Amino acid sequence: METIRASIIGFGAVGQGVAKVLLQKANYLKDIGIDLRVIAIVDSKGADIDTEGIDLSAALSRKRTDGRVGPNNITGLEVIRTIDHDLMIETTPTNIETGGVGLENMLAAFENGRDVVTSNKGPLALKYRELAEASRISGSTFRFEATVGGAMPIINLITDVLAGNNIISIEGILNGTCNYILTRMMDERASYEQMLAEAQELGIAETDPTYDVEGIDAACKLVILANAIFGMDATYKDVEVTGITKITPESLILAEDGGYVIKLICEVKKDLIRVAPKLVPNGHPLAVGGTLNVASVQTDLAGTVTITGRGAGSIETASAILSDIISIYRK
Amino acid sequence: METIRASIIGFGAVGQGVAKVLLQKANYLKDIGIDLRVIAIVDSKGADIDTEGIDLSAALSRKRTDGRVGPNNITGLEVIRTIDHDLMIETTPTNIETGGVGLENMLAAFENGRDVVTSNKGPLALKYRELAEASRISGSTFRFEATVGGAMPIINLITDVLAGNNIISIEGILNGTCNYILTRMMDERASYEQMLAEAQELGIAETDPTYDVEGIDAACKLVILANAIFGMDATYKDVEVTGITKITPESLILAEDGGYVIKLICEVKKDLIRVAPKLVPNGHPLAVGGTLNVASVQTDLAGTVTITGRGAGSIETASAILSDIISIYRK
Repeated sequence: METIRASIIGFGAVGQGVAKVLLQKANYLKDIGIDLRVIAIVDSKGADIDTEGIDLSAALSRKRTDGRVGPNNITGLEVIRTIDHDLMIETTPTNIETGGVGLENMLAAFENGRDVVTSNKGPLALKYRELAEASRISGSTFRFEATVGGAMPIINLITDVLAGNNIISIEGILNGTCNYILTRMMDERASYEQMLAEAQELGIAETDPTYDVEGIDAACKLVILANAIFGMDATYKDVEVTGITKITPESLILAEDGGYVIKLICEVKKDLIRVAPKLVPNGHPLAVGGTLNVASVQTDLAGTVTITGRGAGSIETASAILSDIISIYRK
Repeated sequence: METIRASIIGFGAVGQGVAKVLLQKANYLKDIGIDLRVIAIVDSKGADIDTEGIDLSAALSRKRTDGRVGPNNITGLEVIRTIDHDLMIETTPTNIETGGVGLENMLAAFENGRDVVTSNKGPLALKYRELAEASRISGSTFRFEATVGGAMPIINLITDVLAGNNIISIEGILNGTCNYILTRMMDERASYEQMLAEAQELGIAETDPTYDVEGIDAACKLVILANAIFGMDATYKDVEVTGITKITPESLILAEDGGYVIKLICEVKKDLIRVAPKLVPNGHPLAVGGTLNVASVQTDLAGTVTITGRGAGSIETASAILSDIISIYRK
């Protein structure tokens, strides 16, 4: 059995989700030949290091009681540079302005020959080419299913399951908050402001909802697909973006009368990367409600294949990270 | 580059689709390290053999003009038993009463150490355990994505992309003919008989529609999922089946008034394998119309993931066969 030594850099909701999932699936991983040992966990206040393999259950419980994972003062970058390991799991908070510490962590991991699996979309929405190139030069593997659509496995669906198909276009709903607000506006014949307030109360929208409702979060995810699937060299600033703040209940009712719903649709194909509200017919695979994410992939052989799943949630995101880990190390 | 020598046994619409797809994607396959040569093609009237690799374009054109692929009188079974090759692509017409020649072909392929990729659901709906066991004993690979849902990649989605997840249940629409008839009954406020006649005119339903409308075709596909994903040892006769012939336009209108559609839903989980009409809420991922197929997979980590695609079509089915071939031989 192959021993894989991993670090978890960032130990918020997603990082802790990864630890829980690795604990829960340790036997399964061994059954398929992967002995995965986490040798370092770093959060913003400290670190835990054990080159023999950290007790993940103890680490999770320390994080809960002490608010930090361990007493060690080493940073993520220092761990990546100085401690020998195979895989860096990057789950620090995202920064879409500069790429933040996540970008530095990923580049350092590649410089040191470590594989990278991440849920952190900021660095990929800004510097995808640079990261892909660094991974190529170092011969390391770079996987990022969790950056787009949480537990909706769109990237691995295309690269693994639809292998052999040319991808003509991708259309989808990549932001659960917007989908929730639009679905509820229609259900309740209510205004954008009313349903935003409801989403905020339920924790589905942030106090400052700008990134979600103006389509910026969706644009970040879309640009990752544009770069990874279509080989483009774009950043999220290259995306034509219209958000949902101007949509009225009247327009939703008009759409409904014609047999349509209005959804915030992300669209990428040759020469086009766009996020904008669009009419979708009832019964169409993209017409899913609630906080769901969905993506339709138009291919040359398989026709159009559509995948729907939960776009957020720490365990769901950790599941995407787990599937990336398995696809790298399963023999 | 690895040379893979393959036979295509059965050269109807799907077998010809496979030849077209292999022609179209030959360079792509070489790029990923697979030099696939078809050394035998067999149809019900003859065979073409060339151990150096058949010219697929010439074989397709012979089939079109002569109605048979070649003058050779060797049968599929003889090819499988006597000509050295790695992979048998089984695309003969399905037989769900006995498994037919497809069952014999697959068992013979395993006896001779050949991998099997197939779109032929009859043998798997009747004798899944026997086939899986024969494959295990011979050390050959057995893949059958194309048997369920055509180009909707449900099996590889679960086994590859959702690896690490426990599968709790699968629910879906696995028969495009029934979905078409139910969708059109609702659209037109028309009777089952009227919309069946329309589907028959369009070639979406067979002259004898029994297998489709009574739910038997769906039950065959469901039982393949039950066996392959849940490790059951069932045949399609173990499935509780209710078809769509008793559904009235009145019940569809009542459902619509309540915000629902009626769909023929296949369902498998521990202790249950059932095909029956069910109410599905509008906006739910299973509420897709037309001839589409759809499957929702409930998992322990990723939540519910739903995949939608074309359930039929020779190129779509060949695409599923291609993805199985790639997943076996890609390094």
